[in-house]
Order: sequence, then structure tokens, then C-alpha cells
Amino acid sequence: MIRLLIDKKGKKYLAKDNKIQTHLGVVELENASPGSIVTSHLGNEFYVLKPRICDIYDKMERAGSVILKKDIGLILAYTSLGSGDIVVDAGVGSGGLAIYLANIVKPKGKVYAYEIREDHAEIARNNIKLAGLEDYVEIKIKDVRKGIDEEADLITLDIPDPWEVAEHAYNALKHSGYVVAYSPYIEQARKANLAFREAGLKEVKTIELIEREIEVASVGTRPRTRMVGHTGYLTFARKY
Amino acid sequence: MIRLLIDKKGKKYLAKDNKIQTHLGVVELENASPGSIVTSHLGNEFYVLKPRICDIYDKMERAGSVILKKDIGLILAYTSLGSGDIVVDAGVGSGGLAIYLANIVKPKGKVYAYEIREDHAEIARNNIKLAGLEDYVEIKIKDVRKGIDEEADLITLDIPDPWEVAEHAYNALKHSGYVVAYSPYIEQARKANLAFREAGLKEVKTIELIEREIEVASVGTRPRTRMVGHTGYLTFARKY
Amino acid sequence: MIRLLIDKKGKKYLAKDNKIQTHLGVVELENASPGSIVTSHLGNEFYVLKPRICDIYDKMERAGSVILKKDIGLILAYTSLGSGDIVVDAGVGSGGLAIYLANIVKPKGKVYAYEIREDHAEIARNNIKLAGLEDYVEIKIKDVRKGIDEEADLITLDIPDPWEVAEHAYNALKHSGYVVAYSPYIEQARKANLAFREAGLKEVKTIELIEREIEVASVGTRPRTRMVGHTGYLTFARKY
Amino acid sequence: MIRLLIDKKGKKYLAKDNKIQTHLGVVELENASPGSIVTSHLGNEFYVLKPRICDIYDKMERAGSVILKKDIGLILAYTSLGSGDIVVDAGVGSGGLAIYLANIVKPKGKVYAYEIREDHAEIARNNIKLAGLEDYVEIKIKDVRKGIDEEADLITLDIPDPWEVAEHAYNALKHSGYVVAYSPYIEQARKANLAFREAGLKEVKTIELIEREIEVASVGTRPRTRMVGHTGYLTFARKY
Repeated sequence: MIRLLIDKKGKKYLAKDNKIQTHLGVVELENASPGSIVTSHLGNEFYVLKPRICDIYDKMERAGSVILKKDIGLILAYTSLGSGDIVVDAGVGSGGLAIYLANIVKPKGKVYAYEIREDHAEIARNNIKLAGLEDYVEIKIKDVRKGIDEEADLITLDIPDPWEVAEHAYNALKHSGYVVAYSPYIEQARKANLAFREAGLKEVKTIELIEREIEVASVGTRPRTRMVGHTGYLTFARKY
Repeated sequence: MIRLLIDKKGKKYLAKDNKIQTHLGVVELENASPGSIVTSHLGNEFYVLKPRICDIYDKMERAGSVILKKDIGLILAYTSLGSGDIVVDAGVGSGGLAIYLANIVKPKGKVYAYEIREDHAEIARNNIKLAGLEDYVEIKIKDVRKGIDEEADLITLDIPDPWEVAEHAYNALKHSGYVVAYSPYIEQARKANLAFREAGLKEVKTIELIEREIEVASVGTRPRTRMVGHTGYLTFARKY
Repeated sequence: MIRLLIDKKGKKYLAKDNKIQTHLGVVELENASPGSIVTSHLGNEFYVLKPRICDIYDKMERAGSVILKKDIGLILAYTSLGSGDIVVDAGVGSGGLAIYLANIVKPKGKVYAYEIREDHAEIARNNIKLAGLEDYVEIKIKDVRKGIDEEADLITLDIPDPWEVAEHAYNALKHSGYVVAYSPYIEQARKANLAFREAGLKEVKTIELIEREIEVASVGTRPRTRMVGHTGYLTFARKY
Repeated sequence: MIRLLIDKKGKKYLAKDNKIQTHLGVVELENASPGSIVTSHLGNEFYVLKPRICDIYDKMERAGSVILKKDIGLILAYTSLGSGDIVVDAGVGSGGLAIYLANIVKPKGKVYAYEIREDHAEIARNNIKLAGLEDYVEIKIKDVRKGIDEEADLITLDIPDPWEVAEHAYNALKHSGYVVAYSPYIEQARKANLAFREAGLKEVKTIELIEREIEVASVGTRPRTRMVGHTGYLTFARKY
């Protein structure tokens, strides 16, 4: 059983076994049920929790940069992904998006995760297993630009050249399904946008989200003075 | 069977029956399968689609303002709502958020939708049925400020005074679960933020999302010149 | 003497003469000094003010779109335009930016306003006169892409192809002077940015400003729900 | 003569004398005219420039945080400050805003800079002298909340409690003049906004500017991934 430990400063640890070594001491977890507090051999306390998928996402090993939560959220909301849906996720990278998708489409849906790099696929495989979602994600070592094998409700493209997949997406999507491309650069988003239209996809739309955290302090309220300025553009399109 | 019709200008219609009257003519749908094109008695063509939940959301009857998709997405992503989760959604309003939530937590999860206004509950009930999610949402005519009956993974609060629910949320949440308050005004967000901390909730965070659509035209690329400037603040907190 | 009239609803009128016709009646201004209140022949009251340059800007005749105040402000602040500076402003358009610039550089500085369209130059000429700044702006019917005649502290480019002026700007700028290009589209900003670097200009920087108005109401405080999503990008560069 | 030196990495130095010590060696400036290149005794080259006010602002000694350029720009543009205007600037802090204002209103205008802290006034005095603007700024060790002695076109308030100055501002402003309060926290902006209205000031408006730098690289174009999330709110009001 995987558990999330949180120390008194808020630092989090994923414990994959019944024993975990931290800089605050060794923690024995055999009898630690979620919701309890455990003490390390150095006398430091930790909350013990059943991790949610967002915790796995936060603490998992990463292969390169991942799609941030705000952008994952926009994909989920604009496409209204639901339980039972079939998703093609390419490239899977470290699997951050894949575990979000699988956690929603399970138990009857499935995520087909395309990846061309075996090393990334290996990291993703481990992360998906950590999330307990291995039954709902099938990793395929395949270049999505060569074609898509599944009929999908949603196709997510986190690859440098999503425009190369526009026609494959059109062919693979179910009617009323969505394809979404995530692109750090505006030129990529533009090319994806135009290629999606060219391929006959509908409701093509490129969106950027800016996320601001609001600081609530006794002295007053204001947006944080440092923030992430940009992650990427999301280009949505739909089949009908 | 409910179907989504889209005319050649992109205007959408929800057809609840096998016949629908539009300003472009009467459309007979008895033999119209999703993915096909039908023609009205005036000769106008419509795409016929199986609506996704986002289509129901777009076209359903509304009681007051609804939480926009970008904000729904942030809730989904920050809490990593998944299939099987138990959600308390208060107040349900016209049910826009509820159908998103139910579409994810089904088939084993459930949404308990609190609402104090019978007229809003009635609209929500119809919209939830339209979405085919009536088995996964239980509408309760109850004031969430009086208490929460369920043990929940997620509690969403779209009410004017979410701070009144901070302690109930603490008591009702499962360990590692989340409460989220949606507030148009910064003063509301501040009060919710402080009340959540006061109630012993953790990881309290207030976020605002700004959504920009990027126009891709032959003359060039730029953010749209008119945009929604603000919807609301989301205040997240977690139980442990 | 030019005067600004403001009715009780906040609507503003520029009165160029001692008599002005409004939909609230005829107003006689012969004896109306700034700061007083006058009454029209229909009994409606107006504040009488000496207009500032921002009032002329707001009420002047416009030839196409103008650079918005937020963007004018960024130009002023990033270049620290001051009294006595020499400015080349191309194309002058309706003169909105030119009157801001001239109002700062006077009495010893000067704005050389390049414009290729005689009709725009005529509108600008009138607006500059309305602002009382005709001694500080020289309008030249000349294509700035053909060269710049003056040695300038600041060159402002509100033209579709500012990259064509990169070398002329380098040659015309005084040491430590600035050139700024205003571009609605990101592709224009990119080309200007690269051309400025190519021409040997330094500190090349492209900026976008997003302006949000905050609504302060008795019910609470929040950003306005509708806003201008985008105006343009400003690309700055410097000579040394 | 004050000079700006810029090394090959873009790092800047203000040289107040004919000799300056840098980590790249000692630089003799006796015969260095603006626009030339000088070499340190260690063989490193520097551009020599006549500093503009923005350079003084960038390199001057600072007493606490200063108003950023984007916000200075908005003040300049919304009030259309011009040559000859009379300004009251309170509190002056390190004088960053004051030198911008004085550089515009000179030679006939004047900035009256109120400050209650003698140590800040001393820093401001030095910075203003560095900028060569000592003839156009009069520093007054006075609490602006006790009253304003001058008749002003513009009053700028960078103090924690600008609402305390609302009535004094109303009394001191010329007709059509502006008062502007800079406030980091939304609660301060709200109080200023309401107090300005209460004092009979007109066109009361609270604005926030978000500044994004656009990165233009060979790989593509995008907003910078790290940015300043917030500086402050500007609340404008006008007398008539």
C-alpha cells in the first residue's frame, strides 16, 4: 500500500513500502492507517495519508517538463472527459497527464499512451503503477505521427509537432470527440490550429491560461509577487 | 435519445425528442444516428451528434450564473477528482458543475447536491436528467451551512458565504480530501481562506485563472481583443 | 480658448468656441472660467474645465485605432522621455501619441511626426492644434522607411512593418536613445525584435501589458467582468 | 559629469567621477565622451553613455521598494503629465518616481516631494541630484496627511494610508487635476477608492497592470516563464 507522509513543515514523501527513510528519521508504517500520525525514530511527526492522484503527480519521477495542473484542468473541462471514455495520450512523457486521464476514465474506459522514447515510457510505467492505474493505461512504444490505432473520445498531444497528427486525429476521433495539443510556443499553437482546421476538424480554438495565486495575509490581500508567467497554449478541435 | 444538432453556422441545438423545431426548419431525427447529417423541411443541413457533457452544460437551462469551464477545470485538476469519488456539491444552482462531477465519479461514485432553493433544484434536476446522470446525483433540499451528512472526497461550495461551512467541511471530508469555494468577490475569497485555516484545514490556497483566447488569422496571431476579465476566485483546502 | 464640458452623467464635450450645441441644450461659454458650472438653455448643468492632454486624446477625431494609454505609458516610462527630448513619431495617425509626446518634450524639445497619408496628417494636424501643441510638432509627409532626417532621443513606430526601419533607427538615434515599435500581432513584434538586434541595437525587449480595472462596489471588490483582452506588443531597443 | 558604463555582458555602472572601480578593472573617464568605448586597466571594454533618467532609476540607491516602471507609466499616461505641471509626490521614498516626474515637468514645473522619514529624504536628495534635477524638486520633511501646501496638477501618493489624504487632495488639486494612490494591497486600494469618492473627487478608478515579457528565440516565441505577478494597484481620481 502506497502512503503519503507529510511532515510538520508541509514537506511530502511518497512511501512505497512499510518503512521509509527521511532526513527527519526512519518511519515505520506497518500499522499506520491513513489519517493517523506516525513518529520517526528521531521523534518527528508525520501525517499519514492515502495519496490522491494529484499527490502522485506532485511527487513522481519526472522525465522533462510536465503539463501543469491548470492546463490539465482546462483539457478536462473543455472536453468534459468522463468515466468510460477512451483516450489516446501522446507522448506520454513521465505520465503526469496519463494518470489524471486514467483516474477519470476508469473502470470501463482506457488510456492508450503513445511514446517513442523507451526511457520515458519506463518512467511513465512506474508512475502509472505507483498510481495504481496500470489496468487502465496501455503504453505503446509508437510514433503517433505514424497513425492512431484506437477510436477515441479524446486525443491529447504533448509533442513538438502536433500538426503532423491532425489527419490521424480526424480519422481516429469518434464523432463529438476532441483533440487537444499542448504547445509551449505560439508558432506551434498556430501551426496546430491551422492544421486542425485544414484536416476538417471543427470548433478549433487556442487558449492560454494565466494562473495567479492570491496571498491572504493579516496585512492584506494581493496576488503573489512572483508567478509562473507562461506554460503553454492549448489548441482544441473537435470531430464532426 | 438526446442528440446535439449543429447548423452550418455552428449554432447548436439540443434535441430531446425525435423531432425538433428550429428557425431553419423542422428536423425529423427518428433515423438520424450520431455522425450523420440531417436536412430540415426547409432544406437546411445539421450535423447530428451524441452530446458530450460539455454540450449539455453549454445548452442547458440556467438559473443565474454558472461556474465557467476554466474554473471547473481547476477544481478537477487541483483535487484530481476521479471515478468512484464521493462529492458534496453545494449549492447546486442549475447543475452545471454537478454534471461535470457526476460524469467523472460514475459509476461507483456519487454527487450529493445540496440546494436551498426548490426552483433551482428543479432546474438542476432536469439538467442532470438531460445529461443522463440522474443515477449518480442525489439532490437534497438542504442548507449546507446546517451540516453535511456524507463523508466526502470533495466538497464544492458555490454559495455566498462559504466560510460558514468551514467546520462542517472539516468534519465531512475524508482524509486527503478537498473543499473548494468559488467566490466572485475577493472579500469572500479572503474570508473563506481564513475560515478554512481556522477550521484546521491544510494547504489553503486561493487562485484566480485568467483565460485568453488566441486568434489565429491569416494576417497574424494575437490574443482576442475582448475577453472575460474575471469570473471568480477558487479557494482550496484539504483535510489531514 | 478650448474648454472641456462634463454633464451630470459624466459625458464629456470639447468646446472649441464660446458656444456649444449639445443634446442637453446650447451652452454659452463666454464668461465661463475653468472650475465653474454652466447651465444650458434647457437648464442642464455642465462642469467647465481646462482640458488636459488626456482629455484631448479622449475626445479628438480618430483616424483608425490609436495606441491606448497603458501602452503610451509604457513607452514614456521605459524610455523616460523628458522635457527637451527630440522625438520621431511615425506614423502619426490621428496624433494621439504625438500630443502626449509633445506635451512632455516642450518647450525646448520637438516631435517630428512622419506620416505617409495626407488625410491622416490632416486629422493629426487638427488634433495637435486642438491640444495647443502646434509649435512642438512638425508633421512631415514622408515614409519613415525611406530614412529619418533627425537625430532623436526616441523613435516611436506605429507602422505595420517596423522592421523596415531598424537600420534607419540605429542611424538616427542618439547614444542611449530608444526606438519603440507598437505591433498588434505577435509575428510583427517578433520580426521587429529580430530586426532591431540585427541592426546592432541593444536591450531589445518585447512587452505586453494587460490592464485590469478593479470594481469597488458595496457588495465587494473584484476585477471587471469584461475587459480589453489585447491591444498590442511594444518592442523596445536602444542605441549604444 | 555623470556617465553610464555598460560592460560586454550588459551590466551597468553609474560613474559619478572621472574614475570608477569595477570588478572588471579601473576605468579612467576623463576623456571619455558619450558614445565612445573605454578600456579598463585590465583590458575590459565598456560603452560610455550619458545616462537617461531610466538609467538613474535603475542604478540609484533604494530605500525600500519602488514603484515599477509599468506603474509609473500608467500614472504618466492617465494624467497626461506635461512640461510645466506642478506635482506633489508623497512619500518620496528613494525618489524613483520623483525623478521621472521632474524630468517631465521641468523647466517651468516643479515637484514638491513630501517625506516624513529624514533618512529616506536623504537618499532621495542624493538620487535627485544624481539625476541633475535638484532645481525641479523641493523635498519637504512633512506628513502629507497633515495637509498639502501647493496647488497641484497631480498628486501622487505612495503611502500606506492614502485615504487619509483624500480631502487634502481635493483641496489642493487644480480643476482637472489628478490624484493617484499606489497600493500593494487590494484593501488599501478599496479604501482609497471609496475615500476619494467620499471627498467629492470624480472619475475614481482602480487599475492593475500585468506586464509580460515576450521571449523571442530561434526555437519560437512565448511569454517568459517567470514573471512579476503583482506590484500594486493604482487608484486615480480627479478634481472638478
